[in-house]
Amino acid sequence: MCTLITNGHIVTATDDYRGDILIDGETIRAIGSPGAFTNLQADAVLDARDKYIFPGAIDVHTHMELPLPTTVASDDFETGTIAAACGGTTTILDFANQQRGHTLAEALQVWHAKAESKAVIDYGFHITITDLAAAPEVAMDDMIAAGVTSFKLLMAYPGTFMVDDETMYRVLRHSASSGGLVMVHAENGIVIDLLVREAVAAGHTAPGFHALMRPAILEGEATQRAIMLATLAHAPLYVVHVSCAYSLQAVAAARAKDLLVWGETCPQYLYLNDGSYAAPGFEGAKFVCTPPMRRLADNEALWLGLQRGELQVVSTDHAPFNFAGQKELGLHDFTKIPNGLPGVEHRVILMYEGVRTGKLGLQHFVNLLATMPARLFGLFPRKGTIAPGSDADPISAATQHQRVDYTPYEGMQVQGVPDTVLLRGRVIVQNGEYVGGKGGGQYLPRKTFSEF
Amino acid sequence: MCTLITNGHIVTATDDYRGDILIDGETIRAIGSPGAFTNLQADAVLDARDKYIFPGAIDVHTHMELPLPTTVASDDFETGTIAAACGGTTTILDFANQQRGHTLAEALQVWHAKAESKAVIDYGFHITITDLAAAPEVAMDDMIAAGVTSFKLLMAYPGTFMVDDETMYRVLRHSASSGGLVMVHAENGIVIDLLVREAVAAGHTAPGFHALMRPAILEGEATQRAIMLATLAHAPLYVVHVSCAYSLQAVAAARAKDLLVWGETCPQYLYLNDGSYAAPGFEGAKFVCTPPMRRLADNEALWLGLQRGELQVVSTDHAPFNFAGQKELGLHDFTKIPNGLPGVEHRVILMYEGVRTGKLGLQHFVNLLATMPARLFGLFPRKGTIAPGSDADPISAATQHQRVDYTPYEGMQVQGVPDTVLLRGRVIVQNGEYVGGKGGGQYLPRKTFSEF
Amino acid sequence: MCTLITNGHIVTATDDYRGDILIDGETIRAIGSPGAFTNLQADAVLDARDKYIFPGAIDVHTHMELPLPTTVASDDFETGTIAAACGGTTTILDFANQQRGHTLAEALQVWHAKAESKAVIDYGFHITITDLAAAPEVAMDDMIAAGVTSFKLLMAYPGTFMVDDETMYRVLRHSASSGGLVMVHAENGIVIDLLVREAVAAGHTAPGFHALMRPAILEGEATQRAIMLATLAHAPLYVVHVSCAYSLQAVAAARAKDLLVWGETCPQYLYLNDGSYAAPGFEGAKFVCTPPMRRLADNEALWLGLQRGELQVVSTDHAPFNFAGQKELGLHDFTKIPNGLPGVEHRVILMYEGVRTGKLGLQHFVNLLATMPARLFGLFPRKGTIAPGSDADPISAATQHQRVDYTPYEGMQVQGVPDTVLLRGRVIVQNGEYVGGKGGGQYLPRKTFSEF
Amino acid sequence: MCTLITNGHIVTATDDYRGDILIDGETIRAIGSPGAFTNLQADAVLDARDKYIFPGAIDVHTHMELPLPTTVASDDFETGTIAAACGGTTTILDFANQQRGHTLAEALQVWHAKAESKAVIDYGFHITITDLAAAPEVAMDDMIAAGVTSFKLLMAYPGTFMVDDETMYRVLRHSASSGGLVMVHAENGIVIDLLVREAVAAGHTAPGFHALMRPAILEGEATQRAIMLATLAHAPLYVVHVSCAYSLQAVAAARAKDLLVWGETCPQYLYLNDGSYAAPGFEGAKFVCTPPMRRLADNEALWLGLQRGELQVVSTDHAPFNFAGQKELGLHDFTKIPNGLPGVEHRVILMYEGVRTGKLGLQHFVNLLATMPARLFGLFPRKGTIAPGSDADPISAATQHQRVDYTPYEGMQVQGVPDTVLLRGRVIVQNGEYVGGKGGGQYLPRKTFSEF
Repeated sequence: MCTLITNGHIVTATDDYRGDILIDGETIRAIGSPGAFTNLQADAVLDARDKYIFPGAIDVHTHMELPLPTTVASDDFETGTIAAACGGTTTILDFANQQRGHTLAEALQVWHAKAESKAVIDYGFHITITDLAAAPEVAMDDMIAAGVTSFKLLMAYPGTFMVDDETMYRVLRHSASSGGLVMVHAENGIVIDLLVREAVAAGHTAPGFHALMRPAILEGEATQRAIMLATLAHAPLYVVHVSCAYSLQAVAAARAKDLLVWGETCPQYLYLNDGSYAAPGFEGAKFVCTPPMRRLADNEALWLGLQRGELQVVSTDHAPFNFAGQKELGLHDFTKIPNGLPGVEHRVILMYEGVRTGKLGLQHFVNLLATMPARLFGLFPRKGTIAPGSDADPISAATQHQRVDYTPYEGMQVQGVPDTVLLRGRVIVQNGEYVGGKGGGQYLPRKTFSEF
Repeated sequence: MCTLITNGHIVTATDDYRGDILIDGETIRAIGSPGAFTNLQADAVLDARDKYIFPGAIDVHTHMELPLPTTVASDDFETGTIAAACGGTTTILDFANQQRGHTLAEALQVWHAKAESKAVIDYGFHITITDLAAAPEVAMDDMIAAGVTSFKLLMAYPGTFMVDDETMYRVLRHSASSGGLVMVHAENGIVIDLLVREAVAAGHTAPGFHALMRPAILEGEATQRAIMLATLAHAPLYVVHVSCAYSLQAVAAARAKDLLVWGETCPQYLYLNDGSYAAPGFEGAKFVCTPPMRRLADNEALWLGLQRGELQVVSTDHAPFNFAGQKELGLHDFTKIPNGLPGVEHRVILMYEGVRTGKLGLQHFVNLLATMPARLFGLFPRKGTIAPGSDADPISAATQHQRVDYTPYEGMQVQGVPDTVLLRGRVIVQNGEYVGGKGGGQYLPRKTFSEF
Repeated sequence: MCTLITNGHIVTATDDYRGDILIDGETIRAIGSPGAFTNLQADAVLDARDKYIFPGAIDVHTHMELPLPTTVASDDFETGTIAAACGGTTTILDFANQQRGHTLAEALQVWHAKAESKAVIDYGFHITITDLAAAPEVAMDDMIAAGVTSFKLLMAYPGTFMVDDETMYRVLRHSASSGGLVMVHAENGIVIDLLVREAVAAGHTAPGFHALMRPAILEGEATQRAIMLATLAHAPLYVVHVSCAYSLQAVAAARAKDLLVWGETCPQYLYLNDGSYAAPGFEGAKFVCTPPMRRLADNEALWLGLQRGELQVVSTDHAPFNFAGQKELGLHDFTKIPNGLPGVEHRVILMYEGVRTGKLGLQHFVNLLATMPARLFGLFPRKGTIAPGSDADPISAATQHQRVDYTPYEGMQVQGVPDTVLLRGRVIVQNGEYVGGKGGGQYLPRKTFSEF
Repeated sequence: MCTLITNGHIVTATDDYRGDILIDGETIRAIGSPGAFTNLQADAVLDARDKYIFPGAIDVHTHMELPLPTTVASDDFETGTIAAACGGTTTILDFANQQRGHTLAEALQVWHAKAESKAVIDYGFHITITDLAAAPEVAMDDMIAAGVTSFKLLMAYPGTFMVDDETMYRVLRHSASSGGLVMVHAENGIVIDLLVREAVAAGHTAPGFHALMRPAILEGEATQRAIMLATLAHAPLYVVHVSCAYSLQAVAAARAKDLLVWGETCPQYLYLNDGSYAAPGFEGAKFVCTPPMRRLADNEALWLGLQRGELQVVSTDHAPFNFAGQKELGLHDFTKIPNGLPGVEHRVILMYEGVRTGKLGLQHFVNLLATMPARLFGLFPRKGTIAPGSDADPISAATQHQRVDYTPYEGMQVQGVPDTVLLRGRVIVQNGEYVGGKGGGQYLPRKTFSEF
């Protein structure tokens, strides 16, 4: 099967030109100036006139079908990856979470099972480590052998996900020696837990208290701590969902000292703020995720952080829960609200707003959404660019105005909405509608981390 | 009783002049130009020609008769305060340590009993909090009422002294509201404990491993963490025994942001380095204290920190153990070596070396040893200066060369050795010899912290 | 003549106590607790109950009888020093300005003649160098021998005062080797001159254009340049009238690198802002001085700079011109407005507002106004403190409210107004009125600069 | 004419893949996976197996046929561009220097005449402004219209090239409003000139004094000054030949404040140091260029500056003079040595050493040598990348060892030597030999500066 995309405005992390893309099977065969391949016999021709063509976006932070004690995230790998595809994302990296007392292999098996026949786009896994007693360091090597080359640690949620500093240091040290990359959710869970307990005891149970009991400075503290332990362990470190100036500054300061530290943020931390919790009634629950929405000044700081290159990746932390039935579990106690926001569908268009408003260059936009994620997580150059030999995952986006029909960003006017998406040469989204059928996503074993 | 000191070269944190000091009873009655009081009938006249007169030095960090599981520090309040007096120190602040499961009041009572009839110089207490369950926050108010206005927390030594971040935050928060000052021993005890266990398991039991298993960066980490939690709690913070550039930088950065953070160092971190652990046989045990000796570059950084005003106090962390019988407990396992160095006797002369070698001005020297300690810990202007109405604790120091006969600084040539020391108007050291008799030290209830 | 001041609340840069001061002739003979000297036969007794006693303030930046091409500053050494005395200032350092083509000795002689019989308080001189061709480096040594140990350079006012970088570097280099201290007026005069010419050419002649044509960043630039040249010359540097965040940051950054750089500001840069130029009609001319008033944010930055110790001295740059007849010279052209503000009378009370509003501690206030000026300019401990042997220049200040009847700070409510001022043992201000008669001020030859 | 390059290892600032390049006429028609174009009828096929293919390098800082008062640079546009081509550089930007009293147009005309028939690679011009009186701001607009969109200013060489701060500010201001980019040679020429005159007067005439009389701190000073004036003028600024930590830090600090400042360095400042001047006899003259070689620590700082992205471009400042006859003009007086080094031939291989030794990634290397120069100077995407539609200027480089036969880097072992170079589709270097015939270089009018 040979597909020709013609007359696109092709943008990579470096380049920006008009051209045609020739796809042969699953990969890009050639790229040429407009008309370069006209005398070739293509099975299909897609006209991309007046449209941008970007590399398929990569979302390295999703939680499809995330199980919580009382409920499970409303997207499974089918609905979630269809949403992703419609938004221009052709690869996700999801978190396989070790359960305490269980092995890493079990976790990976469980997540493979969730994704296998359902995912309509390509996917890989990080492994979340919670219990080294049940799975000592050597198990990490098995994960790497299986193509799971990044390890997530949480410094929040004592009793469930939180690991102590000993575990964190051991994982960092072993990861450093094995070519892994440690990802850290940085919040001081111990102090937050105290504040949360005191709030509940004081009858402060409305959604807004979720944010008040997770002060930004405790994210900053944990980020500094993780960086120091990573430095001691000579380990590269990736800080997930940087939400505030405190942790941004910690990441930036580390990078200025030439430490191997990277930072990720998400659209919600760029666009939304703690004013969201002032919504009447229980509406604020829609914005209950962790870290919570911060102040407007933090939004601005994060945009600057992107512009200065202090942050390198924009992901989503996609973990959707329905308002009715799910968010409502916490109607009388904010601690019972499932934590999470949807995001996988709208990341690309939300970040394109950054381009449209002059905050980001086009190439920078591609770098944040596709190229850097691919490089940091061992997928480049198979994913993350438009080049001969790469997977043929181009997405095309028109630049007319369109309205997002979507809760957290209700009513926002956007442009750059993807209309055609290919996955390894196959059209899976057409005119913005998913047309890819069942399944079809491939598991992506990843390379180990290498400095670049 | 009226004593006249004549012809001294009087130095305070600001002033520097020749003069006479008239002492009436326990306090300074007047200070005058040479000869100003010649027609007064003094009971005693001390000639201070060619000598400096400084305010009696204050050591805010001592551990007299410190009980460890296997032994007790070799100085009690009698021998320790006699040593202090001989070295020009007329006030100490010692740590009353809460035992887990016991109250703060008990701890204070125990330390009062130790000091009461033995101390030959004035003294006060900090309280070390280890267990809020046994002594909730309200007990801190009783301490403040009793004149114990500073609270020590240790982030090292899990299982004995270490408190977790919840306790630290609660103490900081309550202290802030009560006018207390929190002092923190900043080391990441959790990771250090792992490293220590691994070292012992690997058969690395020589004294030098004590230092290797307590990397400087873990002091830096804990210092940052303490500063962040103090910031969240709006609490002033005093970081004890800053030993390395990592924690110095954390303190300096906080101060540059106008946070209420102060730093203390000790002579051992200015003069000694990790080369000490390379001594043959078990000799390195003499230098086993916490934090351990760091690198030469850290010595230099700390001197700069003093010069720039980033550190404000020099204390000793005096906790002596005999080599024979005590340090030797760890002959086959460095973890069993009692942690601590002597220091109370030689701090003044060691810091005077800073003056002699041009690193510190005379007034700065007085500020570090007497004035700032008095101000920060609620003793000023009773202690810490030479002014009418202040306690008459002047010390005089000649500037001939003299050799210190003393282990950690073996063979160092010094000047500025105190020869005459008064405590509240009474001569207690003469020609360098203690002549003050038994007891005589007073308990000093202290004022609460106030910003200045 | 022996004078006794009783029951004062004595404050120095370090101390703070109640006491009596015994003055014998021109110097302080003794300081004692209240009543310490009651059986002494004093010629005069001054009751200072409920009053602060501070060391006489030192203003190191005045321009008495300053000659400009079209007029001369309205205060001569008599009226100016009487005003100073009434405001609690007992020492000034004025600028003797070398005229191009003339020697330094001539300048000094001229200024001596102005001050000699007129000054009612003590005084010294800096020398302003404008022309090395007329007075090569060796002439600086004669100045130092004459007790003029500081050299002023202006980087503004091309054609009159401005020196180029070559002259600046030569003066710095020679000063460094001779024990002098170089003071710099830091503004990029070349670019300012362009902007001013363009403004006038465009018909922008109202007073407010004075400020608009002297952008703060050009003060920052010149400050950086002076610091770099001083660093190359190994010369200590004193930056006069820091007026904005740009130059403050340059000074602070230099000090953080342990360079010998000091910064001075003036009350007008702490209290007034560029809103002053919005006054109707020609009123803005009252605020025409150089540097001009900056933004509110600069006021705040400078207060922080004082609090952090980044600035060490507050002086006035006193250079008054009457509105009628003098300021009005520039009615149709702001470049013809004589540059300068009065200040010598109100500096102490204006800075005491910093104490009253919690921005400065009492001792810090004394340090900024008296002790640091004395130390930096070779007058300590004769001036700048209250100690036996020092000149008896105490000032007493009550703390009732009082209104300043004074243009730039019109209507401001203040406390801490000096009511009694002594100069070398003689009362020269009583109940706020000058009672000291004609003359009486002494020339103060000064020591060379020494690091401390 | 249709050329096919097969099996290359293609590297751009983002991509890295094996592929074939199809060239049609002067531009790239298509890029494909190996074999993608086998059934196309190419006029020529170049086998690039085992070779890197990079975009043709761009040297934005050359001085071909530079006229000095006593001599002229030994390379004209023919020899110089042939050398460039052999080194893998397919585009240069040379400086057309305004002569005092003459117009910009004259300068441009002169340089066009020099280049026109001689240049064998493509070229553009910057204009060096020395005299606004002879060519007021409006003349800059004519230059921009002629495709000369960048303006060079020198802060060194008083009397010939140096402009004062007024001129600098005026050029910056006008450039900002016209879309130009100002390039600055930052050294404090006034102070350097003093030092040089003093050195010569003292008989210090050996080549090494050239470096000693141009202290690095004076480069730092001028860099800060230029940045401040550019900030005032809202003008983007490009600092040429950053040679030391002082100016690097100024550039980095400006960038951290989000100012539009870029920095360039050259291989000589990365590889050579002031030890070069210690060569016996007159040998040091070979290294006389401005800025001079700095210290080893500066080399390290600049490498770090590249790695951190603080510097964005590596150029050469190519200005060669023969030792015999030219450098020797200064045999008895270093001020008479023509300033300049050769460089245009070896920049690519010297920077490839950075790749080989792990200091730079391959893509980063391409970015520094080709992509960023093209973007900053208005040539992208015509030049600076390998993409459909771009000029077909690929260079191929083998990675065997080879020895550079070349003075400043005498005896250094290198890899990555370009063996085949195309200019707009035509092979001009084959097996490392120039085969392109006479002329053939095109003038490149450039776009105005746009932020990205």
